[in-house]
Order: sequence, then C-alpha cells, then structure tokens
Amino acid sequence: MSDVSDWWRTSIIDMEPGRIDLRGTPVQDLIGNVSFAEMIWLMVRGDRPTPAQAHLFEAALVSAVDHGPQAPSIAAARMAVTCGLPLNNALATAVNMLGDVHGGAGEQAVELYHHVDAHAGDLATALDDWRAEHGKIIPGFGHRFHKPTDPRAPRLMALVAEAAEADAVSGRFQHIGQAIKAQISAEKGIALPMNIDGATAVIYAELGFAPPLARGLFCLSRSVGILSHAWEQQQQGGRNKGPTPPKYRWTYDGS
Amino acid sequence: MSDVSDWWRTSIIDMEPGRIDLRGTPVQDLIGNVSFAEMIWLMVRGDRPTPAQAHLFEAALVSAVDHGPQAPSIAAARMAVTCGLPLNNALATAVNMLGDVHGGAGEQAVELYHHVDAHAGDLATALDDWRAEHGKIIPGFGHRFHKPTDPRAPRLMALVAEAAEADAVSGRFQHIGQAIKAQISAEKGIALPMNIDGATAVIYAELGFAPPLARGLFCLSRSVGILSHAWEQQQQGGRNKGPTPPKYRWTYDGS
Amino acid sequence: MSDVSDWWRTSIIDMEPGRIDLRGTPVQDLIGNVSFAEMIWLMVRGDRPTPAQAHLFEAALVSAVDHGPQAPSIAAARMAVTCGLPLNNALATAVNMLGDVHGGAGEQAVELYHHVDAHAGDLATALDDWRAEHGKIIPGFGHRFHKPTDPRAPRLMALVAEAAEADAVSGRFQHIGQAIKAQISAEKGIALPMNIDGATAVIYAELGFAPPLARGLFCLSRSVGILSHAWEQQQQGGRNKGPTPPKYRWTYDGS
Amino acid sequence: MSDVSDWWRTSIIDMEPGRIDLRGTPVQDLIGNVSFAEMIWLMVRGDRPTPAQAHLFEAALVSAVDHGPQAPSIAAARMAVTCGLPLNNALATAVNMLGDVHGGAGEQAVELYHHVDAHAGDLATALDDWRAEHGKIIPGFGHRFHKPTDPRAPRLMALVAEAAEADAVSGRFQHIGQAIKAQISAEKGIALPMNIDGATAVIYAELGFAPPLARGLFCLSRSVGILSHAWEQQQQGGRNKGPTPPKYRWTYDGS
Repeated sequence: MSDVSDWWRTSIIDMEPGRIDLRGTPVQDLIGNVSFAEMIWLMVRGDRPTPAQAHLFEAALVSAVDHGPQAPSIAAARMAVTCGLPLNNALATAVNMLGDVHGGAGEQAVELYHHVDAHAGDLATALDDWRAEHGKIIPGFGHRFHKPTDPRAPRLMALVAEAAEADAVSGRFQHIGQAIKAQISAEKGIALPMNIDGATAVIYAELGFAPPLARGLFCLSRSVGILSHAWEQQQQGGRNKGPTPPKYRWTYDGS
Repeated sequence: MSDVSDWWRTSIIDMEPGRIDLRGTPVQDLIGNVSFAEMIWLMVRGDRPTPAQAHLFEAALVSAVDHGPQAPSIAAARMAVTCGLPLNNALATAVNMLGDVHGGAGEQAVELYHHVDAHAGDLATALDDWRAEHGKIIPGFGHRFHKPTDPRAPRLMALVAEAAEADAVSGRFQHIGQAIKAQISAEKGIALPMNIDGATAVIYAELGFAPPLARGLFCLSRSVGILSHAWEQQQQGGRNKGPTPPKYRWTYDGS
Repeated sequence: MSDVSDWWRTSIIDMEPGRIDLRGTPVQDLIGNVSFAEMIWLMVRGDRPTPAQAHLFEAALVSAVDHGPQAPSIAAARMAVTCGLPLNNALATAVNMLGDVHGGAGEQAVELYHHVDAHAGDLATALDDWRAEHGKIIPGFGHRFHKPTDPRAPRLMALVAEAAEADAVSGRFQHIGQAIKAQISAEKGIALPMNIDGATAVIYAELGFAPPLARGLFCLSRSVGILSHAWEQQQQGGRNKGPTPPKYRWTYDGS
Repeated sequence: MSDVSDWWRTSIIDMEPGRIDLRGTPVQDLIGNVSFAEMIWLMVRGDRPTPAQAHLFEAALVSAVDHGPQAPSIAAARMAVTCGLPLNNALATAVNMLGDVHGGAGEQAVELYHHVDAHAGDLATALDDWRAEHGKIIPGFGHRFHKPTDPRAPRLMALVAEAAEADAVSGRFQHIGQAIKAQISAEKGIALPMNIDGATAVIYAELGFAPPLARGLFCLSRSVGILSHAWEQQQQGGRNKGPTPPKYRWTYDGS
C-alpha cells in the first residue's frame, strides 16, 4: 500500500477525516482571517506576505484581469459559451490559450530581468545574448494597440517605486525594466511602452516569484476577466458564434 | 464594418489606444485601490461590495482552494505537469474537470436554496419536488471522507451568522441550509455534514450571486490550489505519471 | 492492494508486460489488418462492422471534418496556435468547444430520431412533445449559411439509401429524418435543409450508436479539420491573434 | 471589410452557401469515396496517399489508440467523466495532456531521426550532439512497463520492411531507428525496446510527415482510446473519482 500513497507527495495540504491543514494551518483558521490574495501567496509559496508585499501583489493581480475580446483568451471564452459550455469549461478553454505567446510573456519577462540582472552593468550585451538565444522579440515591451503607453504600466511602476521607497522591495527589477525600455526605445527610435507582461513581471520579480509563476499568476488574474465575459455572454445568449458574422469568412489561398 | 464590431457586445470593458476602462473606471484607478477579491466582485457583477460583503466573499473564496490529489481536479493538474504541460495548460486541464458533479455542485446548491426559499414553510415538499426532478442526491450535503464534519462548513456558517447579526446579509439562506441539513440527517438517521459546496452556496446566495456563478467562483478559488500543486509538481519533476504506479493497473472485466 | 486496482474497471484493454490486448485481440493482430475506421468501431463498441457498415461509418466520419474558421472550434484552434500552443493543446482547446450547441447537436438529433421512432405514425405529436421538453429548436435541421441545401446531407442520404437497398441498414431513421425535414419545412413555409448533424445522426442511428456517441464521433471527425487548421496556422506564424484585427473591437454597451 | 476576411487565410477549405470544397474537391465527392485515414492525410497534407502509403499510415494510427488508465490521458478522461463532463470535454481534457512528455515524444523521435539522418554514418556523434542539446533521454526508446519488448513496435517495423521491400518507402528511417536501438542498448548493456513513439515516428518519417504532425497524429489516434474509455466510464457511472480510493491519499512531506 505504501507505494500507492507515496505516488503523490505534497507539502501543501495534509488531511484526515474532519481535518484539512493548508501549509500547516487548519483551514478554519485561514477562512475569515486572510484575504484571497494572501491565500494565493500562502498556497503557492508556503509563507505569508507582509502588508506591503500583499499590497503590491494585489495590484499586479488586479491589473491584468481583462483586455476584452481582442485578447484570444477572452474571445475564446465567449465563443465557448455560445457553443453551450458551462462556465468551468469556458474558463478552461480560455486559460488553455494563455500559452508561450500570451500568458507566457510574463514568464519570459521575469527570465529576461534575471538575465539582465546577472549581467549587471552591461545591458547592451545582455540584450544581445538574449536575442541570440530567444529571437528578436523582447518580452514585456511594445504593444500593437496601446501606443505610446499602456495605462497599466505607469501605475504599477508608481506602486513599485513607493514600495521601494519604503524598503518593502529592492527596486532593482524596476530599474532593470526601465533601462530595457529606454534601451530598446533608443534602438528603434520610438518610445516603446512597457506592457502589462513587462510591468507585472517587475512586480513578480521584486516579490521573488519564480518565472513560471508569472505565467501562473497571470492565469489567475485573467481568469477573472474570462469568467466575467463568459457569464455576460451566457446572459446574452447567442448560439455557435464564430469570430465574426458568417458572411465574413476567410481568405482562401489554395490553388 | 459595423456588423463586425457589433458581433461581440460587452458592458465590462471599454478601451481605445492608451485607455482601458473596466466597469466604467479607468484601470489605473483600480490598481492599488481595490483588493483582488473586490476586483472579482466588480468585474463579475458591475458594482462594488460593502466591506462586510467583501469579507464574507473572501472567506468563501479562501475556503475552497484545495482538497489535495483526492480531488480529480488537483490530481489532473499534477498528472498534466508530468506530461510536460506548462502551468496554463495544467490549470486548464484541471479547471475543465470542475463539471456538474465537481464544481457544479455549488451551482446546484444555490439553485436548491432558491427552490426551497420559494416553498417557504414546507421543506419536505420542497425536497420531494427537487428529488423528483433532479434525482436522489441533495447537492451540498454529505461527504465521503469528512465524517461527521467538514471543517470548512462550521467556520463559514459562523461568519454568515456574524454578518447576519450585523445586518450585512439576511441570514435567510443560512437558515435554509441548516434546515436541509437537519431534515436529510433525520431522514437518514445519521448526522450528514454540510460540505464545502453547500457552505459556500449559502454565502453566494446570501450575497446575491446567480447560481452559475457559484460554479464560476469555485473555479477561481480552486484554481489557487491547482496552481500550487502544479507548480510543486513542476519543481519535483516526474515524467508521465498516471494515477498510480505502473504495476497497479486496473481490473479487466471483458470476456 | 486489490481495492486500488479495482478502482478502474474496463473491458476495452488488458495488458501485462509485453502484451496489449484490445477488445480481446492482441494489438499486433490488429495493426495492419483493420482500417482506422474499423478500429474506431471496435474500440468504441467491442464488435466489428460488416464492410457495408464500415463504408457508411467512414462516410459519416469523412463528412464532418471541417467547416472553416466560421466554426468556433476551427477558429479557436487557429487562435490557440498563435498563442504559442503546440498541436495537442490547440486540438484540446478546440474539441472542448464541441459542446451542447456545436458537436452536441448530433447527439440531440439521434435522441430526436429515437423519440420520433417511439411515436411511430404521429410525427406532429412527437415534435410537439419534443419542443415542450427541449425548446423550439429542432436539432439537425436548418443552417444559417448553407441555404437552401447543405451539400453534405444529400450525399450522405444517398449512401444510406444504397445501404438500405442492400439491407445493410433498415432505413428507418432515414425516413424519420426526411419526414422531420418535410414537416418543419411545411410549418415554416420554407425548404429547411437537413444539416451535417442531422445527416450524420441518421447514419449513427442506423448503425446503432447510442446518442452520446454521435457527439463523440463528431469530435473524432472534426479533430481532423482542427488538426489541419492548427498545423497550417503553425506554418503561417502569427502571434496572439484574436478573432479580428485589433482595430475591430467590440460594441461597448455599458452606461 | 477586406482586412477582416483576410485575417484568417487557408488553403484547406473554400466555401459559399451550398458549396464546401476541401483541398479543392467538393465535399460530396469525398464522402463515400475516400477512407477516413485517406481523408486525414488529404486534409493535413493536401495530397492523396498511394494505397501502400495509406496502408502504413493506417497501421500507425491503429497502433497507438490506447494504453489503458496507466496512461495519464486515459485516466484523465475517465476521471473527467465522473466529474460530469460530456464526451467532448472529457476528450479535450485528455488530449490536452498529450504534451511534450506524452504525445510529444513522437514529435521528438521524428526530429531525432532527421538529426541522425543528417549525420549519416556517425551515429555516436549524432547521439552525443542530441544529448548535449536535449538531455539524456533518447525519445522513442525504452518502456517502464513493456520489457523487454513493446509488442506494437516489431509489428510496425515488419510493415515498414514490407513497404520498403515494395519500394513504397525508402526504409531509411527504419534503419536509423534500429541503429539507435542497438546503440543505446549496447551503451546500457540491456536490450531496450523501441516504444510506440519510436515506432510510429519511423512510419511518419518514412511517409514524409513533419515532426509536429507525429504529435498531432498521435493525438488523433489516442483520441479513439480516450473516447472509448470515456464512454465506458459514462455507462458505468461513478461520481467524482480521483486517482485512487479516498483512503489512499498522498504523502505529506511538509514540516
């Protein structure tokens, strides 16, 4: 029997009939005593945030909830509902889409910041090395719609600056983020915005989250918008809606 | 052109380059000013909770985050990671499983409470009618593992009682929940626990959430545990792990 | 140990190291000796089709592979690829969408045919009863794009007629399908086409598949188109593509 | 308007009301005239297989349909059904799991064969280079359960040998596969089996499929087993089944 119960190991949860301990604390002592954001932190990391950390963490979670049906994830959720899917399946359909190019950009941005951090003092070389390995796209900067500024980034950066001022975080990754923005804007001769992935990655890096968690936390955050749109669509009705009205089809480029 | 941009309609988000308004408020005015739980409420419903409502809402969200790999959703997330899936796909795989019998039980429990509420004064008839339409299972009560008590339910009920005492909620659905528990325990001659679906459904009903949102909010809550387990599994490694070690297969019952 | 290996029971597969039996036949005796369509039939049902049954079965599987990005499933697959998802996750995202209103319509059509069959001789009453329980939509008939005829249906019906002529199937469900088409066309005063769900449902009913398998087999069939589109999109490239170009957003109808 | 219909481009499907052409052929001319396997080939590649190619292709598709609930994908499908998911969502949940370590192994094996092919004559160096870039695991060889032989591989290899004898394929990738098997068996001093990923990858490489399609075609093939198990579970019933009976939990390794 032991090799069956050994098959999965966890330090997150322990339980027996009538008892559920999460990260070592009975669940009933957490309910009503920690905020949802603190609970996320505790579950994912195993420790508790300070109030200043929790404040920054909530700001990042709040900032990324939605970008409308322009985002493939949000559109997919609404399409899924019109195919008759209940909310759990609509959520899953949409969260599944938060892959390397969508929700994964935050993960790559945290990796980039760590990479630049390890090249302290030589940003140009750091970016060259990054591009040699990962291609020309610098994750976390530029936006095809929000030009010249993504309104979420300056606000998030102001909160990081406040936290750094109060010594709640180091501010190191914020400087890195802003240096990258300046560098690639200079290279292109155009003011490139820091986007939502780049800005939340600054916060997640400042708070010590590993890169994959930037993707994971983006998923939690965006799930809020996905749920809201799926629910709104469910109330609106509509059946089997593709991306556009039927008469707008696609371009056939076969021979 | 208009029939393309009319294809999706929303009152959740409005934007143009450089501007994102969520439920009528510029995103930068929300970031740093509302908690993550308040943001969920705002996005899903369009209004803001009072502090007492937000407190109860957070309690419900905190309570359902995890039930270990005994829950199909959590097990699926860990299995998915060992198949090489990144966190977004592992989350989606698991949230997809929160169907009618898993995350959907909360939705059914809210429906049941509304159904009983509409039969004020005649619980036995209300339950008979419910069973005639939905079958013998009463959603929200009983647990195959936590006997005689699911530790989450009494704590959540205490918080509802406090809120009702302070007139933050009516307490009506709590009475209904407790009456159902008493009734079906009497019928079976055994103390049946209110489970996590039944307890959070009391809160969601008290707060005025429509039944499908009990499922949707459970998905947001459980996503926290799913993410935590997926991340822990990613750090542990392991490849292509099925439910049990390979030598424990299954029972073949073919001829 | 026994209660672990008893947890899952199957008559589909039996194996031990070096041996895999599928539906009672060693896998190596199936490989190279049965067609893929015959293998699907064997796995799902446990028996083997006659050549005439296999021919009709393949026709149904071939007919439903694709309806272009107008179909939410196909569009979702292409969007998913531009989010960086590999083919398995793109497939899953799209197949997930084949819900009650999309792939589920075939399941409902088989149910409808069985329902009508049980009311032999009184189609009008059968349809009235159906609508009283399920709402006004008659699954399997009508198409918002293919008017007046969905080109797949007449071809499939010709094959069923041939098979009935040769006594390979009864033809009973084909008559039912055509009677429904005539009846609801007369009611509406317009020639309503039998659509792909209605036509494949005739075949699945003739071949004795249970209603949920009409949905399941549609998923296998449509997976072919989904894979083809996902792969084409992967070769085209493109990043983070929502349903329409960014400037075509949506209609904001908030206050 | 044009930039909307240009947003998606395809050479797979063209249509207008009443007309659906797939790869340039009216759908009604394909239905009843091509096998399901030929249709898969046509849709994915745009051309038609010879009978010998189609025979080998079907063999590969038939071989990988199932490996029981030992495979995470199959277990996930059954768990999903007990959570109340209909067949499309159960299929999606399971196919989603066919990631880099599961269904993706076939893709990697085709890449490996191409890599070895490009180092003609120097297998040891080719394997060293592969390991330097990808790590120590050689995809397509070894099996934790089927020792010393996976029964599917010898049968598939016999069919490839026959086809090569008849000049239907070159046999080049079969030689590569067998050379790799011999080399790594010699290195480890133990007879390592070619597994299902390695064997189907030989066929897909011989037939000229790009590496990602080995993953994609594995998904189509395994979908058959997934559907069969999901349907069997749906008939069995069972509610909310995790990987093992509730009393078998997991090992808690927290402090």
